[in-house]
Amino acid sequence: MATQGQVITCKAAVAYEPNKPLVIEDIQVAPPQAGEVRIKILFTALCHTDAYTWSGKDPEGLFPCILGHEAAGIVESVGEGVTEVQPGDHVIPCYQAECRECKFCKSGKTNLCGKVRTATGAGVMMNDRKSRFSINGKPIYHFMGTSTFSQYTVVHDVSVAKIDPQAPLDKVCLLGCGVPTGLGAVWNTAKVEPGAIVAIFGLGTVGLVVAEGAKSAGASRIIGVDIDSKKFDVAKKFGVTEFVNPKDYDKPIQQVLVDLTDGGVDYSFECIGNVSVMRAALECCHKGWGTSVIIGVAASGQEISTRPFQLVTGRVWKGTAFGGFKSRSQVPWLVDKYMKKEIKIDEYITHNMTIGEINKAFDLMHEGGCLRCVLKTHE
Amino acid sequence: MATQGQVITCKAAVAYEPNKPLVIEDIQVAPPQAGEVRIKILFTALCHTDAYTWSGKDPEGLFPCILGHEAAGIVESVGEGVTEVQPGDHVIPCYQAECRECKFCKSGKTNLCGKVRTATGAGVMMNDRKSRFSINGKPIYHFMGTSTFSQYTVVHDVSVAKIDPQAPLDKVCLLGCGVPTGLGAVWNTAKVEPGAIVAIFGLGTVGLVVAEGAKSAGASRIIGVDIDSKKFDVAKKFGVTEFVNPKDYDKPIQQVLVDLTDGGVDYSFECIGNVSVMRAALECCHKGWGTSVIIGVAASGQEISTRPFQLVTGRVWKGTAFGGFKSRSQVPWLVDKYMKKEIKIDEYITHNMTIGEINKAFDLMHEGGCLRCVLKTHE
Ligand SMILES: NC(=O)c1ccc[n+]([C@@H]2O[C@H](COP(=O)([O-])OP(=O)(O)OC[C@H]3O[C@@H](n4cnc5c(N)ncnc54)[C@H](O)[C@@H]3O)[C@@H](O)[C@H]2O)c1
Ligand SMILES: NC(=O)c1ccc[n+]([C@@H]2O[C@H](COP(=O)([O-])OP(=O)(O)OC[C@H]3O[C@@H](n4cnc5c(N)ncnc54)[C@H](O)[C@@H]3O)[C@@H](O)[C@H]2O)c1
Ligand SMILES: [Zn+2]
Ligand SMILES: [Zn+2]
Ligand SMILES: [Zn+2]
Ligand SMILES: [Zn+2]
Repeated sequence: MATQGQVITCKAAVAYEPNKPLVIEDIQVAPPQAGEVRIKILFTALCHTDAYTWSGKDPEGLFPCILGHEAAGIVESVGEGVTEVQPGDHVIPCYQAECRECKFCKSGKTNLCGKVRTATGAGVMMNDRKSRFSINGKPIYHFMGTSTFSQYTVVHDVSVAKIDPQAPLDKVCLLGCGVPTGLGAVWNTAKVEPGAIVAIFGLGTVGLVVAEGAKSAGASRIIGVDIDSKKFDVAKKFGVTEFVNPKDYDKPIQQVLVDLTDGGVDYSFECIGNVSVMRAALECCHKGWGTSVIIGVAASGQEISTRPFQLVTGRVWKGTAFGGFKSRSQVPWLVDKYMKKEIKIDEYITHNMTIGEINKAFDLMHEGGCLRCVLKTHE
Repeated sequence: MATQGQVITCKAAVAYEPNKPLVIEDIQVAPPQAGEVRIKILFTALCHTDAYTWSGKDPEGLFPCILGHEAAGIVESVGEGVTEVQPGDHVIPCYQAECRECKFCKSGKTNLCGKVRTATGAGVMMNDRKSRFSINGKPIYHFMGTSTFSQYTVVHDVSVAKIDPQAPLDKVCLLGCGVPTGLGAVWNTAKVEPGAIVAIFGLGTVGLVVAEGAKSAGASRIIGVDIDSKKFDVAKKFGVTEFVNPKDYDKPIQQVLVDLTDGGVDYSFECIGNVSVMRAALECCHKGWGTSVIIGVAASGQEISTRPFQLVTGRVWKGTAFGGFKSRSQVPWLVDKYMKKEIKIDEYITHNMTIGEINKAFDLMHEGGCLRCVLKTHE
């Protein structure tokens, strides 16, 4: 390709400061160094983690930066030593790396790879601890090792899942975060079994995917809990069988669920990021075995609490990141499942826009009717 | 037997009021009703749960009562419908019932039986919601469904484990609480696997039994944490390989352990009952998979807390009651393991006394050198 080895100038949405509108700028994207991959991003969706860092509430947020971590694209070029992908491959950048060599990857117990974490956490690339993005020579930080709100991005090779080239990139971009998180929370972290009673706190995209996962796992009752009753109609389509709005009750929501289920649910999922809901989600679990999985990301500094008796009497408190999926190994498998119509994606996409409309897309996220908004990044 | 169907008058240690010395009294023990078993208690040990309720800190403590829940004896008589034990059987009364019929017992997921809980929690028997203990017609409450600080007690048949009559009752009485709790926490709740790194917070009887269990499970490192360095010498005999006294460090103990273990332990056990240690025990676990098990019983009203990120990044928070063992089914199996010298018991017994010396025995419990004190209840 003509661009290989060259700096590419392209459009990106730059977050200069917390809470200030993103600015579409011409940025420079340096060529990939050893172990790096430059990707032409074709579609990117927005997730709450982007909004969280953008809001300035994330103490680890670095500015200026290029946000975005739920996307799909095509490899433009690769750096030295990259063997698993080549220019032209269709890929999904993954904020959860998978190096297959570190203590974490080899443990067989977790999807959290440690290989590039210190660099991605610092908004730079491992090789030279520098950014590949700049504007007129001034560096712009990377974000989550993905930075997909850009026409081109550079990521570590351990963070690239190569997928079926037939898969529609404007759909499978959702496999970069929300969909795997919800399905994996059910399948990998909780391991919901047929007949189980499940409670889902928060019926945004993640909560709906959890419902879909629980339905596919054979759950007998899927109780959706949300303070916005408008969510209930759409949630039915994803498998939720019963609805509870905490605002309709005087008693604590955990008590409402315990009463509804003769002692509590088998599995609960927190898909909001609210620490008091996390407590309720644990405490609505059945004594003896109920397991609660935290998916939501709470504001920095906030803490969860409960009486230890809740655990001594058999409840289990867990959490999940990227649903426990190993990114490079399993994202392609999820793409295949989508192609075979075994998992939903289209149903979570309520809006389509262009990257130029990204600020409007963020506004939409805070409105009840929006699940995922997919942005087209090239004309 | 001559006593069958009769009220028995015998000695018991009565707790009249919180924190006041127990009083050895002649009490009346009514005959067992339907589904009940009257047991001649031969040996009883003391456990911290007795001391906790006695101290008045247990909001569910009822007075006057007969404490005690770690004992062994011989069935004196049985009530109507009792088929699984008969007079003369050697037994261990179990505060954790096992009815084999309730939702809990049938779940296959927990040892917490629900059958007699409402009665035992209220200090009475299920059949007539009354006590079988009295002094001159004034009822004395039961405790934990066992009340073993008495020469005779009445328990529900679902709370009686029938054991090998060859087993020495002055030893196997410890299988009523402390020993199963520690072994089961490792084997059933945490499921420690060979090579694992384990941290144990608190090296009292329970912590030492956890060490023994971890050693038998093949743990590669067993790190004992205690603020009393005198515990370390004896702990070596139970399998502890390294010792940490939090007082020797300025940094938080969780950080000390993370540094010692290149990222954290695989399993941790809290064997103290201190909510801030419970937090440390969770936070010293390895990211991605570390599992912390709460065994200690915290004072009423106290809460555990942590940042939810600890769980989202893969740590698991659990607890255990009676080590997850099914009492009637598995206590006899533990007795057999003891008889085959596969588990220790004798080593945990540091003192032997008579029931008349029970107040002195409680004083001993607060001294560092005492693990279990076994009381002989009959001359
Ligand atoms: N752990 C992970 O790997 C991971 C990955 C992706 C997203 N997340 C997190 O998952 C969470 C959910 O994401 P989303 O995109 O579905 O969010 P969302 O905002 O679309 O959905 C949240 C839902 O919760 C409801 N809600 C808010 N407060 C509530 C309360 N007190 N009780 C009941 N319902 C309440 C809202 O009405 C909304 O329907 C976010 O915190 C996000 O950061 C985590
Ligand atoms: N969950 C259950 O089923 C169950 C069953 C039996 C006992 N227990 C509980 O287990 C706990 C332990 O019982 P035990 O008989 O071994 O108690 P113990 O008092 O003999 O031992 C506690 C140990 O913890 C140490 N310790 C105290 N504070 C500490 C701190 N801040 N940091 C480090 N070490 C500290 C003490 O020095 C002591 O060695 C108690 O809370 C008891 O009620 C629970
Ligand atoms: Zn996301
Ligand atoms: Zn790795
Ligand atoms: Zn006990
Ligand atoms: Zn039962």
